[in-house]
Amino acid sequence: MSSADDRRPRPGRPRHISGPNSSLSPRDQILDASARLFVHQGFAATSTREIAERVGIRQASIYYHFPSGKDEILGELLEKSVRPTVDKVAQIEGMCPPEAPETALYVLMLLDVRTLVSLPHNTGFLAQLPEVTRSPAYEQYDKTRRGLEDAYERLGCQVVRPGVIVPGSAGEWLLNHAETVIFMRRSGATLGRAAEAAIAASGIRMCGAGQDQIDHAGQRAAEVLASL
Amino acid sequence: MSSADDRRPRPGRPRHISGPNSSLSPRDQILDASARLFVHQGFAATSTREIAERVGIRQASIYYHFPSGKDEILGELLEKSVRPTVDKVAQIEGMCPPEAPETALYVLMLLDVRTLVSLPHNTGFLAQLPEVTRSPAYEQYDKTRRGLEDAYERLGCQVVRPGVIVPGSAGEWLLNHAETVIFMRRSGATLGRAAEAAIAASGIRMCGAGQDQIDHAGQRAAEVLASL
Repeated sequence: MSSADDRRPRPGRPRHISGPNSSLSPRDQILDASARLFVHQGFAATSTREIAERVGIRQASIYYHFPSGKDEILGELLEKSVRPTVDKVAQIEGMCPPEAPETALYVLMLLDVRTLVSLPHNTGFLAQLPEVTRSPAYEQYDKTRRGLEDAYERLGCQVVRPGVIVPGSAGEWLLNHAETVIFMRRSGATLGRAAEAAIAASGIRMCGAGQDQIDHAGQRAAEVLASL
Repeated sequence: MSSADDRRPRPGRPRHISGPNSSLSPRDQILDASARLFVHQGFAATSTREIAERVGIRQASIYYHFPSGKDEILGELLEKSVRPTVDKVAQIEGMCPPEAPETALYVLMLLDVRTLVSLPHNTGFLAQLPEVTRSPAYEQYDKTRRGLEDAYERLGCQVVRPGVIVPGSAGEWLLNHAETVIFMRRSGATLGRAAEAAIAASGIRMCGAGQDQIDHAGQRAAEVLASL
């Protein structure tokens, strides 16, 4: 009974049944489709026409939501990978006792890892694309990320034990460690809560903290995170 | 005395004075120019015409050295990022005492880190590009890299202490840790011998080894590496 006609879209049926989740707003559908395309085929290789096709809207509608087009979409995706963590830094530092900097570092790293793990389509990777680093949107991202690196630096310097040599600066090193999840996701890994905690724990362990301190930081971190 | 004419190339002068190091063979000049272009602007965005222009040769000469063109160049660059380490795995495992697996893991990671740090233009990054993972050249690289991951897995499983939770598999986790240098270089870091050793040491520390074991592994590793 199957014929070529059966495969033709019926009137009124959405054109793109495998498109983004239609429970999202049109603006979020554009962000979601762009994220998927940028990560899987590159930012330069993706056109606004292609994004519009995926969402099932006209190309002009992209510019209604994002007047500056692709770069504006990129800027928002990049910012989402660092902003949620940066926005909690002062609160984390305020809530954790200064005499146990491992706790604050653990919380910061766990929050950062969870932010990166929860990003749809692993958009934390976008900042690595050569064409993205040249985009005007990159500058703002880079500034926000530096704020995050500064927080890692402040806390990391207090946690690193004597005799433990850090390659480069503690801030850059710890931020890079948290960002490992981007490349683990890229290799196909699925990271659950235990894996997220293991990455935060290994960050503290890399600084030379002992297992007792790590366990204690992990327990306190769970309480702090719950009230953030 | 300066005029517009002074800036015009004189007859007989090479067209590309800022091109690759001319002490290299033409084949290696092609690899070097390609590496720089692929990393800085992307693989898809680079044409063989552009590579030929950078080297100062005709486009047809690229195909004389690399009959399959860009993908063949890419394959060779990718392989150079993993092959030198993989080729030493059996020797490392043979030279290190089985009762101190930290030493073998330290040597493997230090060698891997040094290989990645010494790659011109940070070509270790190429495997991350979306268009590269779709290239036919990627398959061979992926196979070689899996051999490296297996070695990390074999050694990592012996080093990881009870109570230390590993996100995913030990092999993937340790290989990802070594590859952090790619992203540190990408952020502009210059990694010297001390930083390389610090990354290997932190890999062993992440597994839960104590400072004494790390120091011992580091000392033995220097001897093993010197005779590889």
